[in-house]
Amino acid sequence: MNIKPLGKRVLIKEVIQEEVTKSGIVLPGTVEKEKQITGEVLAISSEITEINVGDTVIYEKYAGTEVKDGDVSLLIVDIESILAVVE
Amino acid sequence: MNIKPLGKRVLIKEVIQEEVTKSGIVLPGTVEKEKQITGEVLAISSEITEINVGDTVIYEKYAGTEVKDGDVSLLIVDIESILAVVE
Amino acid sequence: MNIKPLGKRVLIKEVIQEEVTKSGIVLPGTVEKEKQITGEVLAISSEITEINVGDTVIYEKYAGTEVKDGDVSLLIVDIESILAVVE
Amino acid sequence: MNIKPLGKRVLIKEVIQEEVTKSGIVLPGTVEKEKQITGEVLAISSEITEINVGDTVIYEKYAGTEVKDGDVSLLIVDIESILAVVE
Amino acid sequence: MNIKPLGKRVLIKEVIQEEVTKSGIVLPGTVEKEKQITGEVLAISSEITEINVGDTVIYEKYAGTEVKDGDVSLLIVDIESILAVVE
Amino acid sequence: MNIKPLGKRVLIKEVIQEEVTKSGIVLPGTVEKEKQITGEVLAISSEITEINVGDTVIYEKYAGTEVKDGDVSLLIVDIESILAVVE
Amino acid sequence: MNIKPLGKRVLIKEVIQEEVTKSGIVLPGTVEKEKQITGEVLAISSEITEINVGDTVIYEKYAGTEVKDGDVSLLIVDIESILAVVE
Repeated sequence: MNIKPLGKRVLIKEVIQEEVTKSGIVLPGTVEKEKQITGEVLAISSEITEINVGDTVIYEKYAGTEVKDGDVSLLIVDIESILAVVE
Repeated sequence: MNIKPLGKRVLIKEVIQEEVTKSGIVLPGTVEKEKQITGEVLAISSEITEINVGDTVIYEKYAGTEVKDGDVSLLIVDIESILAVVE
Repeated sequence: MNIKPLGKRVLIKEVIQEEVTKSGIVLPGTVEKEKQITGEVLAISSEITEINVGDTVIYEKYAGTEVKDGDVSLLIVDIESILAVVE
Repeated sequence: MNIKPLGKRVLIKEVIQEEVTKSGIVLPGTVEKEKQITGEVLAISSEITEINVGDTVIYEKYAGTEVKDGDVSLLIVDIESILAVVE
Repeated sequence: MNIKPLGKRVLIKEVIQEEVTKSGIVLPGTVEKEKQITGEVLAISSEITEINVGDTVIYEKYAGTEVKDGDVSLLIVDIESILAVVE
Repeated sequence: MNIKPLGKRVLIKEVIQEEVTKSGIVLPGTVEKEKQITGEVLAISSEITEINVGDTVIYEKYAGTEVKDGDVSLLIVDIESILAVVE
Repeated sequence: MNIKPLGKRVLIKEVIQEEVTKSGIVLPGTVEKEKQITGEVLAISSEITEINVGDTVIYEKYAGTEVKDGDVSLLIVDIESILAVVE
């Protein structure tokens, strides 16, 4: 299924990032720490120029509408709810 | 009856999609899985340029107003509530 | 009494449509089925270009303000609440 | 006292219309019927072009602010609340 | 103290008008009648062109912010809350 | 610390004015009278043209956000909440 | 991780300022006094021209969304919630 967002919206797949300390060492076993929730942009509306497909983004909690692509849960989110791009 | 939407609205017929796994095999008997609800665009207002008649779309739950075309229940939905086109 | 709507408004007379099956046969005796409520446009403001006098329209429930023309109850409805024209 | 409305407002005197049947015969004694409430436009702001002094208008219930001109109660109503002109 | 309103605001001194019958006779002793509350415009912002200093105006109840000029209570009111000029 | 307001905002220091009668005589001992609360403008954003640094202003109660400059409490207030300049 | 804000947003790191008396003497031990909370601007969207990276700013309490950069808590804040620059 190919989902193409309309209006000022983007299609996002939620990503649970593994935590990284300031020194850059991954600590997968330290479950007690809060994980950063980000998303990967899978598709954008033709009206979106601020971000690109493939970008990793931080978005507001509870933003967007969940859609199903087969077994996969994705989010359609308004660009206003995308806070930042992570590089 | 020929229903022609006004303003920024479209006429939609709700479609309950059968589920498809990532490998593309239809699983009609797996009723425990959540079904994706989409709609087929039957008519558009003259003000609508974003989508076309015949498109399959995902729209916000509880969007629009139900209308009857004989025995058939249809929805008139504002374009703002159409989240994406599915291809 | 001649009622001329102001602003973006139209004057409507509610019409209870008889039900029609897909094959086009009228079923006046099947009272258990939900009737479609539509309206006939009796007058439009000079600001209205989307619809014409004589059009049959579908409008949002509870839209508009009831006015009396002698014994007849009519509705003055904002064009934003007119969902579609029925042809 | 000469009251001149400001902004997009008009000055109205409420009129209780006598009922008229479709055949045009006045029925003053039929008190059980609902009376149409309309108003006569006494003054308009310089910003108003849609209606004129002397027009009979239908307006939204509970619209406007009551003002006193001696013993007479008048209404200052925003043009947005004037639904129609009656001719 | 010289108070100069900013924005779309005016400075008003509330006036309790004596009642006048239609024949023009003042009835100061008829306390049972409702008094018309109006105000005199003492100062206007440089953005105000609709009314002038010295005008008598009718304004919405509970509009504006009370300010003190020595012992005198005045009101700073947005022009949107000024309903009419009384001449 | 040098605080420079952003947007349509100004920096204000609250001033409790001593009361003055109409004749201009200060009555510092008459504590029973309500005091006028005004403010002195300490800094303005580059977007502000309506008032100047040094002006005495009247502003809406509960407007703005309190900030500390060492021991001194100041207010950052939107220009929309500044009602008048006192001269 | 490099966080680049989108829209009219900036990335801020909260700073608890040590208190300073008017005479400029730091009083780190006077814990009973209220501390001024400010932030350092770490990154700005390409749409932001009012402030620069490195600026110290005062912002509305409870403004923005907290994000994690490894162990560090940062804030993404709309420019409308930035009250002032501190120099």
